[in-house]
Amino acid sequence: MADGTPTRYEQLADDMAQAVREGLLKAGDRLPSVRQTCQRRGVSPSTVFQAYRLLEARGIIEARPRSGYYVRAHKRPLRAAPLTAVPRPEATEVAVSALVFDILESTRDPAVVPLGSAFPAPGLFPLDELARAGTRAMRRLRPEQITTALAAGDEGLRQALRRRYALQGVPLAGDELVVTNGAMEALNLCLQAVTRPGDIVVVESPTFYASLQALERLGLRAVEVATDPQEGVVLDDLARLLTQHRVAACWFMPNLQNPLGALMPAARKRALVELLARHGVPLIEDDVYGELYADVRRPPPAKAFDQAGLVLHCGSFSKCLAPGYRVGWAAAGRHAPQVLRLKTMTSLATSLPPQLAIAEYLAQGSYDRHLRRLRAALAAEQQRTRRLVERYFPAGTRVTLPEGGYFLWLELPRGIDALELHHRAMAAGISTAPGVLFSADRRFTHHLRLNAGHPGDARIDPALRTLGRLAGAML
Amino acid sequence: MADGTPTRYEQLADDMAQAVREGLLKAGDRLPSVRQTCQRRGVSPSTVFQAYRLLEARGIIEARPRSGYYVRAHKRPLRAAPLTAVPRPEATEVAVSALVFDILESTRDPAVVPLGSAFPAPGLFPLDELARAGTRAMRRLRPEQITTALAAGDEGLRQALRRRYALQGVPLAGDELVVTNGAMEALNLCLQAVTRPGDIVVVESPTFYASLQALERLGLRAVEVATDPQEGVVLDDLARLLTQHRVAACWFMPNLQNPLGALMPAARKRALVELLARHGVPLIEDDVYGELYADVRRPPPAKAFDQAGLVLHCGSFSKCLAPGYRVGWAAAGRHAPQVLRLKTMTSLATSLPPQLAIAEYLAQGSYDRHLRRLRAALAAEQQRTRRLVERYFPAGTRVTLPEGGYFLWLELPRGIDALELHHRAMAAGISTAPGVLFSADRRFTHHLRLNAGHPGDARIDPALRTLGRLAGAML
Repeated sequence: MADGTPTRYEQLADDMAQAVREGLLKAGDRLPSVRQTCQRRGVSPSTVFQAYRLLEARGIIEARPRSGYYVRAHKRPLRAAPLTAVPRPEATEVAVSALVFDILESTRDPAVVPLGSAFPAPGLFPLDELARAGTRAMRRLRPEQITTALAAGDEGLRQALRRRYALQGVPLAGDELVVTNGAMEALNLCLQAVTRPGDIVVVESPTFYASLQALERLGLRAVEVATDPQEGVVLDDLARLLTQHRVAACWFMPNLQNPLGALMPAARKRALVELLARHGVPLIEDDVYGELYADVRRPPPAKAFDQAGLVLHCGSFSKCLAPGYRVGWAAAGRHAPQVLRLKTMTSLATSLPPQLAIAEYLAQGSYDRHLRRLRAALAAEQQRTRRLVERYFPAGTRVTLPEGGYFLWLELPRGIDALELHHRAMAAGISTAPGVLFSADRRFTHHLRLNAGHPGDARIDPALRTLGRLAGAML
Repeated sequence: MADGTPTRYEQLADDMAQAVREGLLKAGDRLPSVRQTCQRRGVSPSTVFQAYRLLEARGIIEARPRSGYYVRAHKRPLRAAPLTAVPRPEATEVAVSALVFDILESTRDPAVVPLGSAFPAPGLFPLDELARAGTRAMRRLRPEQITTALAAGDEGLRQALRRRYALQGVPLAGDELVVTNGAMEALNLCLQAVTRPGDIVVVESPTFYASLQALERLGLRAVEVATDPQEGVVLDDLARLLTQHRVAACWFMPNLQNPLGALMPAARKRALVELLARHGVPLIEDDVYGELYADVRRPPPAKAFDQAGLVLHCGSFSKCLAPGYRVGWAAAGRHAPQVLRLKTMTSLATSLPPQLAIAEYLAQGSYDRHLRRLRAALAAEQQRTRRLVERYFPAGTRVTLPEGGYFLWLELPRGIDALELHHRAMAAGISTAPGVLFSADRRFTHHLRLNAGHPGDARIDPALRTLGRLAGAML
């Protein structure tokens, strides 16, 4: 169904997943039989089967032969890297770019198994359908659109985006939305709109390396805030930082944080936005993974709780629909005029044909069907990869249990230098993203991020076995 | 013919234009008859007719009924705004953005006659052919291209660009080329690659307002250099500035400068590059109008004379082929690695579908045919507009005589405030680009830039008459 309205089986799976989260169904509990559930919910057996298969794909339940479906046992998820280590007494000058480029460049070779990649497999996306939508849209192009769209973006696409925001309960102001060259440009423009060189910006710990690069490029200083691998930024820690430092902005990913996969609960998002509003501090919200939530309805952004216009929400189609099209956006609240001006000054406008192709694709109504397939495929692969990590990696390895996206974050036993492991793995034709990339002070020395977004790639399993063996040999 | 090789008639027109430039044929001289020229050059009458029609479209010759073709008389072109006023003793903090945005925003309404626009008429471009090329290219897209292209751009497009550079006698180094979101992004990345906040950058006087905005955004200071309306930057003046100031970079447009239309002769370009090399100062070369040279072969870029890798050459398809596609590039010499890194950090990569569409269009070999048509249409309209300015504007108005592009720069009689004229014209539904936009210290108070890139727009003639009348009334 269009615009995220769940189907009957999705709704059923959603309700059961919630029962598990709330502890009403515990690990090892047997689920009601299909017949029982049919009667109780007034649905058909095929609806129940579909729901159970979905829950199985998400790793929430498992089928036991001739016995039924059971709630799966999970190891306790990885806790945060030592919280007491954050914050540092001083803000940190950022200088990670060279390292990031060296490592990312080494992972670019298509012959290398992409465990260090930032992208899911391109084959997961409806590239042919998008291309056909683009052809149709270009047939209707009026030449004058070329000069009227300009900086803010194509009005049709902006309308479609506003509609999706509204359906998530986030009404946008009229001119708040600026279409950008991917979320990367949106985030950079937002950061520049609210800071001056030398300012302090709070980022998560660990944080997405591109935020560190952006800070470095603009001459900003980073303060890292303790971040729980399940529930995101620790608000007490943030509150302390806001009194200790004169903070110009926060750059957070409340939904499926990169690299942790943390998902901030709605109440925590609300508290975050209220805390920042009290201090008058803008929140740059990187929400490029929200659509990849493994459950049915995507979690709300922090922007949903913004009363003061201080949340600059950045999104993109690159991770969920159209990689390579570089169509993202910023809904920048009260800072929107400044973001639009910066956009005009730095790249004038976003390419029109990709915007029209995506707008046309959205109008044909198959986006949500694609998202459901994508979420199911990624959730299954993430769970599968997690099990392989548990099997192949040395004892003491801890791994996150994200509720979506396509990353896993591993804490290896102390003593394993993940950067050295990265080099050894590269020699074996396998890339990784070592933990030192994800902090301004290179603290995550025995951590790494794995890409679990390549279902069906036959190289993944042997690569994980090799990687686990290489890690074990370093103990 | 492909890649700029002139046809026979173009070659003939080129030779005659050169004879006029060199004074071998003077204003009022009668051209040899068609028959004479056929015999002398061994070409057909239709070739000669085509050549004469081309020269007529460019405003170089005129037909007199029952008499033949004659070299046209031109008023002396506008000389530079007082050269002695430049340079100022101090570098200038730049703060023009707000004014630029106010004025540009007011000109965005499609109901307003676009004499202040920065764009030529979209109808001049082969948008349908490009769209069809895009459809073909997307059919062949391999999904893995999406993640392999990334920051530097599609390899097919980069090869096509390298080939065009080579045919202009500018061999590029292997990894020198970075595809960008239009030239605007290329210029901004290049500027950031070679400067730090507080640095001094030399710009032309008058200069393209976007360069002033870029300086302002990056916290740079501007020094303006005297610029001849016909031949570009005055090198003696530049040499003096280079000894007086610690200059971090120059941002110039040696080909068809915006707003003057100045074209730096090849020898002057060479001397410019050598002068800057002696001082170790990078040249950011904005060359987005070079393809719109009214003559047959586009003039070489300053980059053609670069031995030291200090010229960062920026180009784009936005003005000559594909407006709205936002595909530009930088060939950044020794600074290319830094430009590539900045590109990765600020927008990750350029949208792939528009790159593939343009690469496919270039491969089919009709680009140069399109360029010939476009050049002829713009040259004719520029000459026509110039004649209307001479007819309608008050005595004492001086107007440039550019060798291409689609702008005219007017110096009105002193006492006419061009910003006030802009406001009065807007009230009459006509936009202009007042001269104050084109200088950090708002010196060009009685100047304005007119767009002459809308052939066939019936509103242009009455708008020019109205504008001339409004100007006259302000004396």
